[in-house]
Parts: sequence; C-alpha cells; structure tokens
Amino acid sequence: MAQDFDSKQYLEELDKYWRTANYLSVGQLYLRDNPLLKNKLTSDDVKVKPIGHWGTIVSQNFIYAHLNRAINKYDLNMFYIEGSGHGGQVMVSNSYIDGSYSDIYPNISQDEKGMAKLFKQFSFPGGVASHAAPETPGSIHEGGELGYSLSHGVGAILDNPDVIAAVEIGDGEAETGPLAAGWFSDKFINPVKDGAVLPIINMNGFKISNPTIMSRMSDEELSDYFKGMGWKAYFVENEEDFDDHMAYHEKMAKVMDEVIPEIKDIQKNARENETADTATEPVWPMIVVRTPKGWTGPKKSLDGEPIENSFRAHQVPLPISSNNMEHADLLVDWMKSYKPEELFNDDGTIKDDIKALAPKGDRRMSVNPITNGGIDPKPLVLPDVKKFAVDVKTPGETVAEDMSVWSNWLGAVMDANPNNFRAFGPDESMSNRLYGVFNETNRQWMEDIMEPNDQYIAHDGRLIDSQLSEHQDEGWLEGYVLTGRHGFFATYESFGRVVDSMLTQHFKWLRKAADQPWRKRYPSLNFVDTSTVFQQDHNGYTHQDPGMLTHLSEKKPEFIREYLPADANSLLAVGKVAFASEEKINLIVTSKHPRPQWFSIEEATNLVNNGLGYVDWASTDQGQEPDVVIASAGTEPTWESLAAISLLHDEFPEMKIRYINVVDFLKLRSPKVDPRGLTDEEFDRLFTTDKPVVFAFHGFEGLVKDVFFDRHNHNLHVHGYRENGDITTPFDMRVLNQLDRYDLAKEVVNDIPEYSVKGASFVQRMNDMVDKHNAYIREVGTDLPEVNDWQWKPLK
Amino acid sequence: MAQDFDSKQYLEELDKYWRTANYLSVGQLYLRDNPLLKNKLTSDDVKVKPIGHWGTIVSQNFIYAHLNRAINKYDLNMFYIEGSGHGGQVMVSNSYIDGSYSDIYPNISQDEKGMAKLFKQFSFPGGVASHAAPETPGSIHEGGELGYSLSHGVGAILDNPDVIAAVEIGDGEAETGPLAAGWFSDKFINPVKDGAVLPIINMNGFKISNPTIMSRMSDEELSDYFKGMGWKAYFVENEEDFDDHMAYHEKMAKVMDEVIPEIKDIQKNARENETADTATEPVWPMIVVRTPKGWTGPKKSLDGEPIENSFRAHQVPLPISSNNMEHADLLVDWMKSYKPEELFNDDGTIKDDIKALAPKGDRRMSVNPITNGGIDPKPLVLPDVKKFAVDVKTPGETVAEDMSVWSNWLGAVMDANPNNFRAFGPDESMSNRLYGVFNETNRQWMEDIMEPNDQYIAHDGRLIDSQLSEHQDEGWLEGYVLTGRHGFFATYESFGRVVDSMLTQHFKWLRKAADQPWRKRYPSLNFVDTSTVFQQDHNGYTHQDPGMLTHLSEKKPEFIREYLPADANSLLAVGKVAFASEEKINLIVTSKHPRPQWFSIEEATNLVNNGLGYVDWASTDQGQEPDVVIASAGTEPTWESLAAISLLHDEFPEMKIRYINVVDFLKLRSPKVDPRGLTDEEFDRLFTTDKPVVFAFHGFEGLVKDVFFDRHNHNLHVHGYRENGDITTPFDMRVLNQLDRYDLAKEVVNDIPEYSVKGASFVQRMNDMVDKHNAYIREVGTDLPEVNDWQWKPLK
Ligand SMILES: Cc1ncc(C[n+]2csc(CCOP(=O)(O)OP(=O)(O)O)c2C)c(N)n1
Ligand SMILES: Cc1ncc(C[n+]2csc(CCOP(=O)(O)OP(=O)(O)O)c2C)c(N)n1
Ligand SMILES: [Mg+2]
Ligand SMILES: [Mg+2]
Repeated sequence: MAQDFDSKQYLEELDKYWRTANYLSVGQLYLRDNPLLKNKLTSDDVKVKPIGHWGTIVSQNFIYAHLNRAINKYDLNMFYIEGSGHGGQVMVSNSYIDGSYSDIYPNISQDEKGMAKLFKQFSFPGGVASHAAPETPGSIHEGGELGYSLSHGVGAILDNPDVIAAVEIGDGEAETGPLAAGWFSDKFINPVKDGAVLPIINMNGFKISNPTIMSRMSDEELSDYFKGMGWKAYFVENEEDFDDHMAYHEKMAKVMDEVIPEIKDIQKNARENETADTATEPVWPMIVVRTPKGWTGPKKSLDGEPIENSFRAHQVPLPISSNNMEHADLLVDWMKSYKPEELFNDDGTIKDDIKALAPKGDRRMSVNPITNGGIDPKPLVLPDVKKFAVDVKTPGETVAEDMSVWSNWLGAVMDANPNNFRAFGPDESMSNRLYGVFNETNRQWMEDIMEPNDQYIAHDGRLIDSQLSEHQDEGWLEGYVLTGRHGFFATYESFGRVVDSMLTQHFKWLRKAADQPWRKRYPSLNFVDTSTVFQQDHNGYTHQDPGMLTHLSEKKPEFIREYLPADANSLLAVGKVAFASEEKINLIVTSKHPRPQWFSIEEATNLVNNGLGYVDWASTDQGQEPDVVIASAGTEPTWESLAAISLLHDEFPEMKIRYINVVDFLKLRSPKVDPRGLTDEEFDRLFTTDKPVVFAFHGFEGLVKDVFFDRHNHNLHVHGYRENGDITTPFDMRVLNQLDRYDLAKEVVNDIPEYSVKGASFVQRMNDMVDKHNAYIREVGTDLPEVNDWQWKPLK
Repeated sequence: MAQDFDSKQYLEELDKYWRTANYLSVGQLYLRDNPLLKNKLTSDDVKVKPIGHWGTIVSQNFIYAHLNRAINKYDLNMFYIEGSGHGGQVMVSNSYIDGSYSDIYPNISQDEKGMAKLFKQFSFPGGVASHAAPETPGSIHEGGELGYSLSHGVGAILDNPDVIAAVEIGDGEAETGPLAAGWFSDKFINPVKDGAVLPIINMNGFKISNPTIMSRMSDEELSDYFKGMGWKAYFVENEEDFDDHMAYHEKMAKVMDEVIPEIKDIQKNARENETADTATEPVWPMIVVRTPKGWTGPKKSLDGEPIENSFRAHQVPLPISSNNMEHADLLVDWMKSYKPEELFNDDGTIKDDIKALAPKGDRRMSVNPITNGGIDPKPLVLPDVKKFAVDVKTPGETVAEDMSVWSNWLGAVMDANPNNFRAFGPDESMSNRLYGVFNETNRQWMEDIMEPNDQYIAHDGRLIDSQLSEHQDEGWLEGYVLTGRHGFFATYESFGRVVDSMLTQHFKWLRKAADQPWRKRYPSLNFVDTSTVFQQDHNGYTHQDPGMLTHLSEKKPEFIREYLPADANSLLAVGKVAFASEEKINLIVTSKHPRPQWFSIEEATNLVNNGLGYVDWASTDQGQEPDVVIASAGTEPTWESLAAISLLHDEFPEMKIRYINVVDFLKLRSPKVDPRGLTDEEFDRLFTTDKPVVFAFHGFEGLVKDVFFDRHNHNLHVHGYRENGDITTPFDMRVLNQLDRYDLAKEVVNDIPEYSVKGASFVQRMNDMVDKHNAYIREVGTDLPEVNDWQWKPLK
C-alpha cells in the first residue's frame, strides 16, 4: 500500500511515534515500575537515584523519527550516530519501538513487564549505560568523550557507497577541536565509491551549564561557516513557538525531502557520468535543527527558573526520586503529556500504527548490519611476507629502511584488498616512507589537483593523508574498523599522543562490546608509530616521546599488543600477525631510517610468534648459566645492545652473555597481570632469577620496572628514553639517554661483581668514547665514523 | 624625523630588510663558514648535513617585516607567534638583525665572525633548535606539535589590553582540530580589558608532502568560513606574479594599514564608550597571505620538478652539503639573489638603513617583555587557607565537597588578584563545583547573554569555560602562564587526557627554557583533575581514566608535581603550595563529591609540606614494628583504607597497623630517579624493608610498582584502578577495582603470614559483604546502608 509520507495524517502518526520515544525516554530516566502509570505513582515505582540526561533526548528522538520517515520514503540504507552520546535513551527507545531491542534482549519484551525492566535497567547498576554504548543496538559511537562523531561517520561510509551515516552532532560537541576539524571531511568523500554523511546539528542552544557558541550565531553566520567549508546548511526552526510540534514536523519533513534527494542526485550524477577518478567534490547538504534543550519537558524548575530552553535541562530536570516524591505529580503530568493512551495498548504493547512507522528488517537503523560488524566483513587477504623480506645472510650486513621495505608489502595488501583496506596519516605518509603504498595507490582528495606541484594525489586514492589532523585519521580509521574493514594509521611517534584519549575510548568500546554476545568481532586497529624518538634529524625535542607504550600498557591486556620489531623482517612478521588479528589495538613502533638488518625472515617469524627469543648468534652462554642477560626491545636498543655485546666480547671473550630480543613486549608481563604473559618458569629460564639483566628499551623505563616487579629477578638495569633530547645526531640521542653501546657495555661491566676490578680500564675507555663523541658531533655535526661504520662481526 | 612609511622608497628599504632576513635564513640552513660568500664556496664552508625547513621561511620573514613596519608606524606593543614553528630561522634572523640576538648571545656578534657562528649553530648538535624554541628570543611558542598557536596567542593577550599578538598560522596547521576550534576565541576576547590577536594565515599552499585544504579554497569560501565565525578576512595575494615583490609589499602594507587601524578603532570605541561589562563582540580582522611555499628559493629541483610553490620546498630544497658540492653554485646564486652587497658591509655588519627599520628597544618583537616572563609579572596574593578550612574535630565526622570548599578559597584568590589570575574549563566549572568562583566572578563570553536561561555569564568574567574544548582551555592557560600570569584548568579527569600531548609540550618548553639563563621563571600551570574515575553517577566507563598520573610521572621530575589530597583541607593546603610555585605542572587530583573530612588544616598542611605522613590516629603500631603498612593516595583510597583499618582493628585489635597518607605522590620516588624523593633511610623508616605494604592508589597500579622497584621493600600489594568500570554506584566502582574496604582488609590478612589461619573466617565475611553489596546495588540501585553510613570510630 503506497504511503503518503507527506500527508498531515502521516506527520500526525509520526508525532505519535515521537511521543512514544519521548515517553519511553522519560520512563527510563525515572521509573523502575508502573511503566504505564496505571496506578498512582508510589515511591516504589520511582528510582532511588534517577541519573541520566534529559536535555538532548527529545530533539534527537525528533531527528530519529524523521530519519525513519526518510528511510521508508526513499528506501535508504542509513544508520545513526549519536554525537551527544549521553542521551542513551534515544537509541534504546527507538530500538525498543522497532522491535530489535526485544530481539536482542528477549527479557526486555514489548509489553508492560518488559517496559518496566527497560525503565529500571537504564543507567542502573548491572543495567545499561546512560550513553549510546556498545550494548546499545545500532550504535558504533558511544559519545562519552565528545568530538568524534563526524570522523566516525565518515570512516564508516568510506567504501560503502550505498550507506548514509546520519550523524547527530551536539552544538556543544561542535565546539571541540576534533569536530571542528571534522567538517573538512567533505574534501575526502568520493561520491562514486564512498557513501554519504548527513551531519545534523542538534542545535538545542545549551551544553552542561552554558549556552553554545553556535546557537548564538545567526543562520547567516552558520550558513557562511558551513558554506566556506563546502557544505550547504538547511535549517529547521520554529523558535516563535516551540510548542507547535506540527510546524516542526512539517519543516523537518520538508528539509529531509530536500537533502535526501540532493544526496541521491549527487551520487547518481557522479556514478552515471563519472568514475571515482574523475568525480569532483560536490556540495553536500547538512542540517541545523534549532529546538529548545529539554524540549517538551518541564518548563520551569520548582524555583521558577526556566528548564526547557535552558542549560538546566541537561541532566535530570526535576528532583523526584523514590525518597523525594513530593512533586511526583509533575512527573506524572509530564509523562501523560505524551498521551500514553494513544501510544500503548493496555498490556503495554505499542500500538500497531506506531510500530508500523519504524522501518523493517535491516532498514531499521538499530540493526543496520553496518553497525554490527559491517556490511560484508571479510578477513584481509595477506600476501606472503617472505616475498618482501630482506635477504639477511650475515646479521647486520645489509642496511635497509624498515618502513620502506614494509611498505612494499603494504602496497601488496592494498592490491589484494581493493575495497576494505585503507591507510591514514596526517601529511606524513611520504615522510614515513610508505613508498610501496604510493606505488599501489594515491591519496584520496577531492579538491583540485595541480600536478606537478602536487604528487600522488587522486580523487580515487585509498590512502587518506591530506589533512593535517591526527584526530581525523584516528577517527576515520576507528569508523572504518568498527564497520568491519581494515587499515592502519601511521604517525610520528610523538604526535600519535595527540589522540591518546581516542585510543582509550576505542579500547573501552572494544572491551564493552566484547561482553555482548550478539556483537560481531572487530578487525584490529593498527597504530604505527614511526619517526621515533631516537632519530629526528631536522626536528628536535618536541618530536620525542615514546610514551604511547606506557599509555596503552595500562589498558586491559586482552585488547592491546605492543610490537617493537628491530628490523624490516621483524616488522613484516609483525604486520602479518597484527593485520590478521581481531579485537585489538596493535601498537607497532618502528624505525623509518636506514638500519642494519639482523634477522632472516624465518628467525623474525619465530621471534614474533614467540613474542621474544634467545638469539643464539649474539650470545656466548650456550648451554650455561650466563653472567649477564642483555635484552632489548626496539630498533636502536637492539642495534646498541648488539654493538655493546661486540665491544664486551672483544674485551672479555670469557664473559657469558645471553642476548634476548623482545618484539611483543607485553609477553613479558606476569600471567597474574596478563594471561598471555610468560609463565614464571619460562621467564626465569630466559632471564634467570638473579643475574643482572641489562634491558635496552625504546620507551620510558618505568614500564619495564613495572613489568619486572612481578617477576623473581629484580636485578634489572633498564636503559630507556630518559626524556633527554635535542636537535642532534642520531647516535647522540642514544648517548643523551645512555642507551648507546658504550653506556650499555659499561652498565654490564658494572653489574657483574666479578668485573669490578678487571673491568675498570674498559669502563674508562667507554667513558672516553662518549667524550670523543661529544666533542666530535659539536664540531662536525655528524656521528663518529667508528659509530657510523660499525659492523657486527660474528662472535668467536 | 618623520618617516613616510607608505612611500615606495620605504617599501624598497623594507624589501632590503626582508632580503637580509632571507639571506640569513638560507645561510643558517646550509653554511658553517664563509657567511658573506666572499670566497669561493668550499666543502668546508657547507654543513655536513644541512637540516631544517625552508618552505615556510620567506613568507614568514615577509610577514615579520611588515609587522615591524606596522609597529613603527603605529607604535604598537606587538609580539610574534610562529605557528608553523619549524621555520626556526625566522625569529632568529629577525632577532639578529634587530640586535637582540647578540645582546642575549654575545658570541653571536653582528659581524662576519658572528654570522658564521650564527649559521653554524643552527639545527646543529650543541647549537640551536630548528624550531622557534625556548632559546629563540621573542618566542613563547615552539610550534613543534602543530595546532596551538591561536590559543596561545589569545591566552597571552587576555588581561593585557595594550598588546597585539600577531599569530602566524600555517595553512597546514589550520587543518588541525585545536586550531580549527581556536577561531572561536573571538567569542571570548573583551575589547576593553583584553588585548587583540591578529591571526595571519601563511597560506603557502602546501604542507610536508601535500597541498593544503585551505589554499584550494577560494577567497570567497575563506571569507565565508571566517565571517561565519566572526572574523573579517583580508587577503594579500599576487598569484599572477610571485616574483613581483614590490607588488606584494604594497599589498601587504595596504592590508596592514587597514587591519591595524581597525583593531585600534575597535578598542578605542569600546574603551571610550563602554565598560568591560557592556562591551560587545566586535568583528576582528585577520589576514590571509597567499605566497608560494619556498618563495624566492630554487624554482626547480635537479630533476626539473617544481620546488617553489610546491610541497618539495618544505625542508632542505637542494641536495648540497659538504660531501655533495656538485651543485654548490646553485646555492651561491640563490643566496646572491638577495644581493648581499646591498645588505651587509664588508665586515659583515648589517647596513645601517636596514637596521634602522627594526623597531627599537622593547618594541622589538624579539624582546617584547611579554615574551620573557610577562609585562608586569607578580606572584599571586594568596589568602590564608585557614579561613576556608573545614573544622575537623573528629576525623570523618564532617562531610563536605572538597571542590566546593576549595572554590571559596579560589574565589578569594580571584578577588585578591583581579588582573592576573584566571580559571579555564570546558563547560564543566559548575559541574565541578566551583561555586565559590562563581560567587566572585562570572564567565567571560562576548556573545549575547539571555538570562534567566543563561546563568553566571558576563562580558567581563574572569573564568572562561563557555567553549567545550579542552584544547582551548589548555592552550589559553599556557599562553596566560607563559606570559607571567596565574591560573588553573579544572577538568573531568578522564577528558584531561584529551590534552596529554599539550602537557608534554608545555613541560618540554619549561625544561628547555630553564636552560636559558636569560629566561625569567614561569608561574606553574595548575591542572585540576576532578570528577574522577571513582564516582561518575550519570556517566560511565568512558568517563573513567586516572592515567594522567602515569603520563606526567614520565616527565623530568623537576617540573612535575602530582598531588592527591584526600580531603578539603589537604586540597586547600595543596592549593597554597601549588599556586605559589614556579616552573611546574601541578597535577591536582581531587574529588567533587560529598566525602568525609579527615585532617585538620594543621595536619593537612604538615602532610602537604612533608608530601606524606604517618597518621597517628589511624595507626596501631605506635613505637613498634608494624605487622603491615597501609598507605593510600587519593580520596577514595584513603576513605577505604581507613574503613579497612576499622574493620581490621575491630576484628584483630592486636594487629599492628601503620597507616601512611600520601599527598605529594612523587616524593615516594627514589632520589636516584627524582632528587626530591625520600632517602632510602626515610623511606625504609616509614615503609619498612620487608613488611607487607598494602597501597591503595587512585591511579593505575604500574606506577606504584615502578616507584617501589627502586626501594628495598618489594613486599608491595597495590590496589589501584584496574580498568574496571561501568555506570554504577560510587562504592561499586571501588569494589569493581578491589579498592574497597573489604578487599583491602582481605588483602592485609592474606599478606601477613601469621593471619593465614586465624584470618580465614574474617576473609569469608569480607567476601560475603562483597556479595551482599553486589546483590543489593543491582536491586536497589544505591549503596548498602552500612557502606553509606559507615563512620570512623577512634581506635582503641
Ligand atoms: C571531550 C569532552 N569534554 C567534556 C565532556 C563533558 N560533557 C558531557 S555533555 C557536555 C555538554 C554537551 O553539550 P551538547 O554537545 O550541546 O549536547 P546536548 O546539548 O545535546 O546535551 C559536556 C561538556 C565530554 N563528555 N567530552
Ligand atoms: C600535530 C602535528 N602533526 C604532524 C606534524 C608534522 N609536521 C611538521 S610540519 C608539517 C606541515 C606543516 O604545514 P604548514 O602548517 O602549512 O607549514 P608550512 O607550510 O609553513 O611549513 C607537519 C604535518 C606536526 N609537527 N604536528
Ligand atoms: Mg546542546
Ligand atoms: Mg603551508
């Protein structure tokens, strides 16, 4: 039966739908029983401590209802991102109405009993979060930390040409840096091969206790702002009379009937007349919905201060609770203002005409497959790394740039997975030596291309790195992997920390999503830290921070891996494991500079599979108890450890040295902390229980001490980054932090009691070398020839 | 003698000035000797490894020259912020021309010898950074991590009505989130009591290896973008002919002659006709300068690819070095294109007519006092905290909100320091209970105010918290303290981490600035983490992250303090110490919720002064070796530790418990790591060398293990945040992380060998209590009455 979606009658039905969502949302805030208000509201019916947010709810329900209308009218493949995620009731209520909530959580049935449970569980211990959390059907974005909704939406629709991400953005959220940068996403969305994003600003005028900046801007100013960035703003507003809901419905329907055909037209034109390569940047529509914060709720507080259309509507607007029932009638009046008798049958089921307004099957935003694992999720096809390996016959003989070697494999991954693998970066991909990726693809960018001044840019690239924004990169990649695709974000190590908190939030999402049996598993998010602290060349101290290792190590171990491959083959082997993994954040810390290559691809693969390993050719303790264990994690730490071993062995051929290379750093943790950790027996076998362990580490030293704390052997001497840096030579960065061969060799001699006397002259020579180095670099500006030319020679 | 600043002749002189800066900038990139190119360039004259950035330089020198002209013409009090800070030569060259460089660094004299040294030291080991670093005269902003220039500039001119911050912004930088949010700063600058910021986009079209988004936007789009946000854009461009430098000079001079009078008019009007309270938001001017990246440098690479006006100009454009002199003539031609014979005398001194163009004395941007400690720096007047203290007669009897108690003192600090103390926040100040501050002042906000829907907003407030942006708050505060004023940023603990990397950069600045004897000391930056992990109410897991403690602990100890006051009086005592301090980042982690109050203001003051202390009234080991040491740092850890001590003492009156409260957490570190740390003797006296230490900690546990690693006593049992969280009750957050009284008490019994048998039934009861708790909260939604009502009772 053909529906007249534009009739007054349809909009009146839609109003009912909206009222249903509103009623359910208020109920979730306050009630634990008596959901239909059939009986006089008693203290037992109301929560002891109602907590949650009100101000954002009704405007969002309004938006959601009209998105449903558009889905039905235009048969859209659309999903919803709740930018101001703290209105958790919104997505729950709408999912409850469309039936998906009860499908997923059968105990929350679509009847009076289920409704009571629905209300009680909200924002309640053991219940559901007050945000659009992983337990919320249809959500890929919790919105706890505000600012990433638009980047997430855009990441999700890349390579998903049929999907529209409807992204609700709080007018407060729109003041954050990440969101403000997010508007430039339109410079990267290709109308042929990507889907569309429809940003909708929930301009309710307020945030927690302030007005919002944008709400005080005129329509003209807002139009200018968005127009400047390439968007066309549509406004829905009726500020003369907030209570004229039908006027709002008509206006919103009208705007939806403009923007949806506009999106469809843009895509149709582009797809019929252009290729992804020739398509140009369209002007995408976006919507500003001006409604009062706390719309349809209490107008005034008990003191007579405005609540509706004020910041006061942000959280729980009326102080009513189980222990404070004095004004319970206000709550009843409020809920009854939605006319529940028109919405629910006597048994608490929702009236059929209302249910009928929700889209059906997968068209429901609450169960759009994109929001649960993706539309067509596939594991990556991973080319054999052996073909890309460096041929390492003698350790250290060959010199190569780990990142450029790896990039050839990455290019092949691109090639083998043309629609579900992407790379992101903040204008650093070339600097980070992703040459092999550029051989395979260009950067995606929809603005004008002016070669030869520009290079490797195309409208249909697969790498996106033409916006200088770590927030966008991380946000896009999150959106991409949360919808079942794969990729990596390669960044300067120090500025990866710009998105510390985003990684925390992504981890939190993974963790809570894993608790939901109905949630599909996610591909891992691969975070590649390169241009690391230990070589900066034209940059200096500001570019030196390896603290991401500590940062991520504080998360739950199941979801975190930290790889420190010491050479290109190790990096290749890490790539293979990381890219095949699921449900992780893989931190890969790697050098981009020319470095000696140590391990054959077989050795490297073993190292990565075991996480760490005894390196026979660099050890002199075969079959015996060692005098000292030298371990390293990271490129320069490994290089310097091996050079120190050389120095020591030359001088003290009798010294029994054991060398251990650590790639998967967190394997060192005690199983008490991390179930994947080596057992104490394994650990002791490698590190002994009491011999000195000299640990050369890429990151801050506290992390290694923390890890060893739970082990028997506390005879640990870590040399890591000591927060000493500068514009200086590569080797000097190691000297400044006493992570150089001379300082490591000295440390070893100092730590073995038997060498306290016989090591004295050696220690002196090491000190002399450091002095010589210091004088030389200050005069010449480069490292000593004996440092630069040093080569590993086999141990006798 | 009156100057005709508008004459062609003046602009020709200015062109010479500009060429001088350009010549010096290229010299710094490549040369180590023969600075005037008097002799044929030899391999000895050229650096072995020239490193640095070229692309940004000449456009910045151009901007700088015209700012100088404006300073002279209008007698401006102006300083320069180099957003794309990687053009370190810019500020160095200009400071060298105006004489200030040689004043500060006398060995870099204004003659041939000095020039050779100037060249050699740049971006050279033991020399100066390639960025606008702390060693650069006139700099308050290094620009290593891009994005904060505008926030810094605005922070600096708050309460400095006579100053104009000229903020150069890279067109790449303008793509970052923080910078994009920074444009909304105009909503907060009061034309009566604040100075002005003049943003100048260095629109050179490119970043590292990409074009920039904004450079491909039309003037109309850019005008719209800025107009929407309240700025008026002025354009300087001559893209038909980059080489017509005089055309550029004329256009730039004209634009400066428009924008400077406009700023002066805005201020004059506001100051003559309005008060700070009645002043309204003006439309501030800003400038877009379109020039080619790498302007005036090599046009093409050796392969014939464009360098000028291409990303290829970003770093060192020509591969010429000591070991690669093949194309040295290109370098010579390039440098000679600036006509050094017109710029320098034979002895290498700069020609007088050129020097005359630099402003004089403090008017030089390189030595504007604001850039070195501030215009009129004063320590804060700090009211006596005793007057604001909670009267604690019996520990735990009184309940108070630490933040609201503290805020009364903060209000008094506001009152006593009306022009040099400010508070910043991302829309959370009310939520964070800064009531006392609101009693004293309102929020500064220049948009319309609509009471009663708005509250505590005024054009002349002293608190700025009406933009939801941690980046802006942190950036403004940094700008404020780097110019000699004081303040704090109060934020939700978890979202403080949005600015992790900004704190790193601020610390790095402090550290390097401290190495410069000529730099004045900075007031500390106070970072207040509240709304902490251990009580979230209407928010959940996303709002739970105490990792800032670990993050900052990794920095150099001299510059970091971490305070965990357990109650309001401790917080008051911390405030007093922190606000009087210099050169620090003070992290203050504090609760905002009603909490029992433990320490009298005298006790609290002692605790803070010593950093930590033995608490006699909570210990039972007086004069004896304890069976166990219980220590805590943080509000909830202290509360639970004391409750655990109660439980233990009731059951085992003979157990000798020592309780230690830790406020200044980093005092626990070994002096090997942190010179301020307790000596081993002091530490052992408190913590013993082998008794079990049960440490209840607010943050992640690794940090405590790291700290204890360097101590004798490794019999440590930390209970910290175990990354378990949810929407749940306050006490449940502690239970989830086993930081509750029951788990702590169990831990103690388990750790003392003598209690392994006699403690069994107690342990069982503790487990039962946890079970009871779990059942209760899931049913009722609030904590058990015995938990809520628990009160400390004196130990027998
Ligand atoms: C990064 C970040 N900073 C601060 C907060 C605290 N916070 C929660 S809600 C809110 C206000 C949001 O206002 P708006 O986006 O307008 O949402 P709405 O009005 O729809 O509730 C703030 C500041 C946060 N969640 N995230
Ligand atoms: C936050 C951050 N991300 C990445 C970088 C690496 N980086 C250094 S310079 C640069 C390009 C800057 O371009 P622009 O701002 O246009 O400066 P200019 O063209 O004047 O050199 C980038 C991406 C950085 N310094 N900071
Ligand atoms: Mg809002
Ligand atoms: Mg640029």
